[in-house]
Amino acid sequence: MAKRVHNFNPGPAALPLPVLEQMRDEMLDWNGTGMSVMEVSHRSKPWEAFQAQTTADLKTLLGAGDDYSVLFMGGGARTHFALVAMNLRPKGAFAEYAITGNWAEGACKEAKKLGDAREIFNSAGTKHDRVPEPGSLKISREAAYFHYTCNNTVEGTEWHYVPDTSGATLVCDMSSDFMSRPVDVKKYGLIYAGAQKNVGPAGVVIIIIRKDMLARSAPDLPEMFSYAKVEKEQSLLNTPPVFAIYAVGLVAKHLIKQGGLAAVERLNKQKADLLYGALDASGGYYRPHAQKGSRSLMNVTFRLPTTELEEKFAAEAKKAGMEGLKGHRSVGGMRASIYNAVSLESVKTLVAFLDDFKKRNG
Amino acid sequence: MAKRVHNFNPGPAALPLPVLEQMRDEMLDWNGTGMSVMEVSHRSKPWEAFQAQTTADLKTLLGAGDDYSVLFMGGGARTHFALVAMNLRPKGAFAEYAITGNWAEGACKEAKKLGDAREIFNSAGTKHDRVPEPGSLKISREAAYFHYTCNNTVEGTEWHYVPDTSGATLVCDMSSDFMSRPVDVKKYGLIYAGAQKNVGPAGVVIIIIRKDMLARSAPDLPEMFSYAKVEKEQSLLNTPPVFAIYAVGLVAKHLIKQGGLAAVERLNKQKADLLYGALDASGGYYRPHAQKGSRSLMNVTFRLPTTELEEKFAAEAKKAGMEGLKGHRSVGGMRASIYNAVSLESVKTLVAFLDDFKKRNG
Repeated sequence: MAKRVHNFNPGPAALPLPVLEQMRDEMLDWNGTGMSVMEVSHRSKPWEAFQAQTTADLKTLLGAGDDYSVLFMGGGARTHFALVAMNLRPKGAFAEYAITGNWAEGACKEAKKLGDAREIFNSAGTKHDRVPEPGSLKISREAAYFHYTCNNTVEGTEWHYVPDTSGATLVCDMSSDFMSRPVDVKKYGLIYAGAQKNVGPAGVVIIIIRKDMLARSAPDLPEMFSYAKVEKEQSLLNTPPVFAIYAVGLVAKHLIKQGGLAAVERLNKQKADLLYGALDASGGYYRPHAQKGSRSLMNVTFRLPTTELEEKFAAEAKKAGMEGLKGHRSVGGMRASIYNAVSLESVKTLVAFLDDFKKRNG
Repeated sequence: MAKRVHNFNPGPAALPLPVLEQMRDEMLDWNGTGMSVMEVSHRSKPWEAFQAQTTADLKTLLGAGDDYSVLFMGGGARTHFALVAMNLRPKGAFAEYAITGNWAEGACKEAKKLGDAREIFNSAGTKHDRVPEPGSLKISREAAYFHYTCNNTVEGTEWHYVPDTSGATLVCDMSSDFMSRPVDVKKYGLIYAGAQKNVGPAGVVIIIIRKDMLARSAPDLPEMFSYAKVEKEQSLLNTPPVFAIYAVGLVAKHLIKQGGLAAVERLNKQKADLLYGALDASGGYYRPHAQKGSRSLMNVTFRLPTTELEEKFAAEAKKAGMEGLKGHRSVGGMRASIYNAVSLESVKTLVAFLDDFKKRNG
């Protein structure tokens, strides 16, 4: 029996144990092919069938209609900071961005390099401890698109509503809460998400694109940068990151077995409630970073009374078998990432540790 | 014991069995971390150490000096058709290309979209059955770079010499024979290679770049497209494709254990000699596509007397446990890819089948 830790890493992150076990068990012979899934041709029938099934499973989980395509692209979500602007913003047009954290800022920066990108919200003044109040954003109907980051991994905030764009195309970097809760897909022109938080390992980005968006990709774009080209070839324009897609496929089956995204969300809420509850009940010893209405169900960020205590907390937690609790270097403090594959038991272990640590160091 | 086939796939392709076994055995607990390698933070000490060791091992195998950097980038080699031009060809400059096959043509096409790219050789007239004669190419000293594809996976040809560029920067797409033989790295400004032929699974591209090249990346390039940016962050500008790099690291160790690239090349030559020998001895029943001086040690392409016999050959070979022998749709016929991880035993099995099939269908 392998010794396993409680994994609170922000991404790459915990994967479901049954998925890892299946990967292990079929490493030398996938699906009766006599090959590892890494050794199979991406143009063979078994692989094409698997990729098609994974696409169907993702669409089922998300409730995405026939007017949407699912793309699998190598590289990371960060590549799409540029690709979104290159594909969806015609020459001379502008796009609007809400800057709610580190990654939103990065996305906007790349879009600015390539054309007109406007910040219509920026929470830097309050250290990105909140997302906009519902109804407070003024998005231009004329914008080529409005871009937001619905979960801010670094700061631990999350949008708990879908912004109203008054008709402008809605684009979302959903990397860190993708498949953690139901999504009203039909409101979006494009969703992109790196897999390595809730749905797989690093190495593949999942794109959910409404088909009318494809006409925006200019024909002279380099082919690997063109959503239209990749869609036309069903993500087989080049050799895709087969193993990463395979992992996503297994995770999708696992999520369906769990009862789909509504069930997944229920468990995620239970975990987050437990953890925020413990922080709130600490009488100010643990101070959550995010404002209450903006708290992320995925990344729970908090401070301790001193940085010395934070160091001690991280070190002792690691010793006690809890990984990845140190906050992002740009924010400091602690961060517990409690993605889909982090069990309730792991969260309970952390909560018990929070109480114990406070008693000993309060 | 898993049933394993003889794997002649063109890529994704065979991986060394000991590497697959190691991946299987440490799937739930990598390196004593209590996590799969896919669940470990890419900014953790164990991963940073592994990536640094893999970089060192690749440099050792290639004999690359301190004036070279190794980059790991997500996506596929095809992305670099554009990135090479975007990074290495200054505005207003031109680049030269040798079109020796399907992929070389693709590379040049992308470079043309983005600026001035000139074909100085094209073997389309003879169905890409050869590479240029040594000494026959006239490469302009003024070119920003000269690009070639040293092994043509689809057509089964390979450059058995390094072209003299009279001082122009040499750039090579080495995807399908990277690490199959020693490389005189110091002749190159940049080498790029998708891992999925000889050194790992699909999902990572390895770049060997001479450091003076980095100054050519314009500062306003999207960051994920900039070799200089990726190099500066030691391939951790974003979350890299951790699992694919892990696999490359294990393969590199395996190649070192085998005695390095000179030993690897000896075995590859032995395999290719055996196979071409059998084709040549068939009295014209099997007709190799490549001209003798241009034959690839990696992809052995050949025709049978009729397309009906080719279909029959592929079907019967598959039944006999040999995978991936159908040629690329653009060329037809048969193709046996005999990359590093394809054993001598697999090649002997194929040779015996060639003889037997001819006897029964001659």
